[in-house]
Amino acid sequence: MAEGSDAIQALIAQIARLPGLGPRSARRVVLALIRRRTGQMAQLAALMADVADRSCACIRCGNISESELCPICADPARATGELCVVEDVADLWALERARVFKGRYHVLGGTLSALDEIGPDELGIPRLLARVEAESLSEVILALNATIEGQTTAHYIAEALVPTGVAVTGLAQGVPIGGELDYLDDGTIGAALRARRAL
Amino acid sequence: MAEGSDAIQALIAQIARLPGLGPRSARRVVLALIRRRTGQMAQLAALMADVADRSCACIRCGNISESELCPICADPARATGELCVVEDVADLWALERARVFKGRYHVLGGTLSALDEIGPDELGIPRLLARVEAESLSEVILALNATIEGQTTAHYIAEALVPTGVAVTGLAQGVPIGGELDYLDDGTIGAALRARRAL
Repeated sequence: MAEGSDAIQALIAQIARLPGLGPRSARRVVLALIRRRTGQMAQLAALMADVADRSCACIRCGNISESELCPICADPARATGELCVVEDVADLWALERARVFKGRYHVLGGTLSALDEIGPDELGIPRLLARVEAESLSEVILALNATIEGQTTAHYIAEALVPTGVAVTGLAQGVPIGGELDYLDDGTIGAALRARRAL
Repeated sequence: MAEGSDAIQALIAQIARLPGLGPRSARRVVLALIRRRTGQMAQLAALMADVADRSCACIRCGNISESELCPICADPARATGELCVVEDVADLWALERARVFKGRYHVLGGTLSALDEIGPDELGIPRLLARVEAESLSEVILALNATIEGQTTAHYIAEALVPTGVAVTGLAQGVPIGGELDYLDDGTIGAALRARRAL
């Protein structure tokens, strides 16, 4: 009886496994939930069961969806011929929040990683190539993270796409909006200087 | 379609309301859950519904319980005559983890607060006094937080307990185990010096 019943301890252990949470914050969350047990906690449990039950991956792009095709793939207005390749659904959400991209996505679900034994087949890169061949695309934008893993994966995909003849682009690198040079790392300042543009 | 379906957005909004979480961390949590939707997510939803359904407050001490009396109040071995008054169930759990207190608890559920209109009646202090009178207690330990609110509440309760004749104690204040004087605040150093003891 250190931390409530077995069920409460199991709940704390499950919540402590979520990203950004640990045993201490999980205890706080569970206590806050139990305090609101008839309101928020019951609602949250129902909502979570509902989302777990209804979510699946879009068969075309890998986005989270409630039907075979996600709303973006199902929307004919987004057949612009531009395909944006992202690592993760979180990146897709970030791009959608920015409201600047009007085309469709392809979610890799990770990056190439020799250590984790994730090769091109595990990332579904053959499936991406087949998609580029099948849909009449004008441009593939590799919006992968500016990390070593992301850029290695972007290079691999760019090479693999050469035979298809599609235009392949990547996100610009430089000073972020609101960024102060004094606080930026050398790599970012170097990239921004190399990619300088006429004003 | 910025962040998935309406259900996913509702789930993110609910999780963002939990203590220590915000919109960004809630998005990360929800994406991690959806990735494990058939395993952890379904389990967590079921566990949460179960805990929400079964939890109630112990009618005697206010601890979280699955029955009328919590396991501590129901355990005759814990009728030591010592009653430990805490602000919150989190504090009760912290004391139980320390495994040093063998008596029973009384959970106030907060502190006196003129701003939030929480007076003695809202905190159930009359109920605490009745309990002290009814059970033959030898000591009441006021284990409230060492904050202004906690100490104000402790003073109020100590005064109210004078007529019952029970011994009233509070936690010792001083240097925490592993604490370095250089990093401690003036108040703690002052308290530790005033309460110095012979070695």
